[in-house]
Amino acid sequence: MSTFTNSKFSKQKEKILEVTEMEATKTKMVKAAEEEHPIPATGLAAQDSSGVLSPFNFSRRKTGEKDVRFRVLYCGICHSDLHMAKNEWGTSIYPLVPGHEVVGVVTEVGNKVQKFKVGDKVGVGCMVGACHSCESCKNNLENYCPNMILTYGAKYYDGTITYGGYSDDMVADEHYIVRIPDGLPLDAGAPLLCAGITVYSPLRYFGLDKPGINVGIVGLGGLGHVAVKFAKAMGAHVTVISTSINKKEEALEKLGADSFLVSRDQDHMKAAVGTLDGIIDTVSAVHPLVPLISLLKSHGKLVMVGAPEKPLELPVFPLLSGRKIVAGTLIGGMKETQEMIDFAAKHNITADIELITADYVNTAMERLARADVKYRFVIDIGNTLKSSN
Amino acid sequence: MSTFTNSKFSKQKEKILEVTEMEATKTKMVKAAEEEHPIPATGLAAQDSSGVLSPFNFSRRKTGEKDVRFRVLYCGICHSDLHMAKNEWGTSIYPLVPGHEVVGVVTEVGNKVQKFKVGDKVGVGCMVGACHSCESCKNNLENYCPNMILTYGAKYYDGTITYGGYSDDMVADEHYIVRIPDGLPLDAGAPLLCAGITVYSPLRYFGLDKPGINVGIVGLGGLGHVAVKFAKAMGAHVTVISTSINKKEEALEKLGADSFLVSRDQDHMKAAVGTLDGIIDTVSAVHPLVPLISLLKSHGKLVMVGAPEKPLELPVFPLLSGRKIVAGTLIGGMKETQEMIDFAAKHNITADIELITADYVNTAMERLARADVKYRFVIDIGNTLKSSN
Repeated sequence: MSTFTNSKFSKQKEKILEVTEMEATKTKMVKAAEEEHPIPATGLAAQDSSGVLSPFNFSRRKTGEKDVRFRVLYCGICHSDLHMAKNEWGTSIYPLVPGHEVVGVVTEVGNKVQKFKVGDKVGVGCMVGACHSCESCKNNLENYCPNMILTYGAKYYDGTITYGGYSDDMVADEHYIVRIPDGLPLDAGAPLLCAGITVYSPLRYFGLDKPGINVGIVGLGGLGHVAVKFAKAMGAHVTVISTSINKKEEALEKLGADSFLVSRDQDHMKAAVGTLDGIIDTVSAVHPLVPLISLLKSHGKLVMVGAPEKPLELPVFPLLSGRKIVAGTLIGGMKETQEMIDFAAKHNITADIELITADYVNTAMERLARADVKYRFVIDIGNTLKSSN
Repeated sequence: MSTFTNSKFSKQKEKILEVTEMEATKTKMVKAAEEEHPIPATGLAAQDSSGVLSPFNFSRRKTGEKDVRFRVLYCGICHSDLHMAKNEWGTSIYPLVPGHEVVGVVTEVGNKVQKFKVGDKVGVGCMVGACHSCESCKNNLENYCPNMILTYGAKYYDGTITYGGYSDDMVADEHYIVRIPDGLPLDAGAPLLCAGITVYSPLRYFGLDKPGINVGIVGLGGLGHVAVKFAKAMGAHVTVISTSINKKEEALEKLGADSFLVSRDQDHMKAAVGTLDGIIDTVSAVHPLVPLISLLKSHGKLVMVGAPEKPLELPVFPLLSGRKIVAGTLIGGMKETQEMIDFAAKHNITADIELITADYVNTAMERLARADVKYRFVIDIGNTLKSSN
């Protein structure tokens, strides 16, 4: 259940990151993390591939003329944070401060900032920069910009490495700041900035957002449980598809899904052949596509938002015989992320979370590795992250 | 290069066809092929999985009130005819009269036929029936009707087995009859009824039909060479992607493609990364998808029209990172098939063919198996098929 989980991608980025790392090391030879920028910050960082997070002093840039600075209150734990902390994709640069589901309250704005003021409730998701000149950027799809800058572990415009939201202070260009509407709880709203937009965007783009549309959601985890809520709020008839019957009651009673399919029950699956207009597949493990493609009506769409590390098997004829599509999408652009948050507030959609203290983060990571969470851990940064200054 | 090439599909159909075969055998125990219907016909049939075609006497139904009867003049040889003649998909019923790229001149029409009269030039493609009540049928997409009836080797409404266009006489409901416009050569136009619509339909459906759009065509065979012509006529910038540099001159000089990419030339492929809006992939052999997906721009579409027998490897992250699509399509509906033929006539699009006599058909099949044809064999039925009556 993560948006950045692929070894191929890792390999593509390796070269860039090697260079980045070399430069970062050079920088660090001159300046320590505490001295790179003028503003002191405190966070939780992994120092090596053990992935163990510990208190970490570093620094943030001054509030630039287009920057919004905010005090972090909550940060969701995405599964990719775990992968990155342990360098499981081979791209991590240490020290690494994870976190891309970050919300807080504005403490300072630059003099050219137009949309935000001190005291506003805001958030930052998976990215903090892009080229702003390519076709994707021109179409409000910064998420597909080849130079998109991730919120943590990436090289920022100024050459420094980005640090994420497991920290007390955050600063970003206002273009990458999302306004959190009144009424949306900050803690349970935080995960929407990654998990929410990851499922909202394909529901919209592939036309699965209309009343009466039959939508399947594969996998009931961090992404899947939010996908059920969004699809329901859009008016769709929602079928949860899961390997385990144990999730049935939860899916139907608690999350409000209309139907439940056990993917291992062949009779059950057979009876549902050709019934769905589209499927959002949130599963990151390798799994067979044919049973899912079979569930689609003609012209149906199977949209992958989890990224299994190994290639999946794609038999072509089941696509041909019904003009079906297998697609993939990755988070969403900033305009759509704001739209998603506004929609969530309007329809009272939040993630189901377990709020934890900063001290609990390593235990939470261990539990996350065992999928022992319903459905998202959120760190109470504001109340529990101790400054080590 | 065929629209019906998949073992999975074969397996799905096996049960139905077993039953069909049993029933056909039962019928034949009562009536021979010559006696099933009142109208005598002559064709070329395979009698067993040797695939050898020999003269064959059979019968056709009377011209029903909505039927159009025509004298066959030309019939294209599709690669699926070869597979079916040899029972390579395990679904063939012998005797088998292949042929689904059939053109001729109307000899009789039923009293409720509205669109055709004696003397009209007409054609029949891959199908001769459907349910006419499902969603696909209601949307002029009989090709995706679960009860679509193939032109040969399938069970017709009356329980008899359909015989294809390697025959002197053909009869079909007018709904499945295509008008061949004046100016479109009947011989070189015949292959459009399968090869043409197979590539035309996805170019339209996936929006690859606009001036300035960058379209890739993978494979330069029966489907691919026609795809180049259609895409060019629609105004697209067309890149042919082939394993062999040998086809370059042919692609650029003769077929009018704008660019040529050798898929085995990594530098060449690398330089073209992210340049195409869509790709029509006509290759039926197992082949890697990643290099093709890499050629797509963000939001690009890879459309399969050939169906490799084994599943292909689909790495998911390359789809996610550019919101890309892998899709499949299968011929087109009757409305669109007529539209395609009219478009072909208007733009002087035909297949490049080698016209053969009926006597040459087994040699042609052998050459087709070796891909030794540019690009489609067409049998001169009208002038060379001898009646064995």
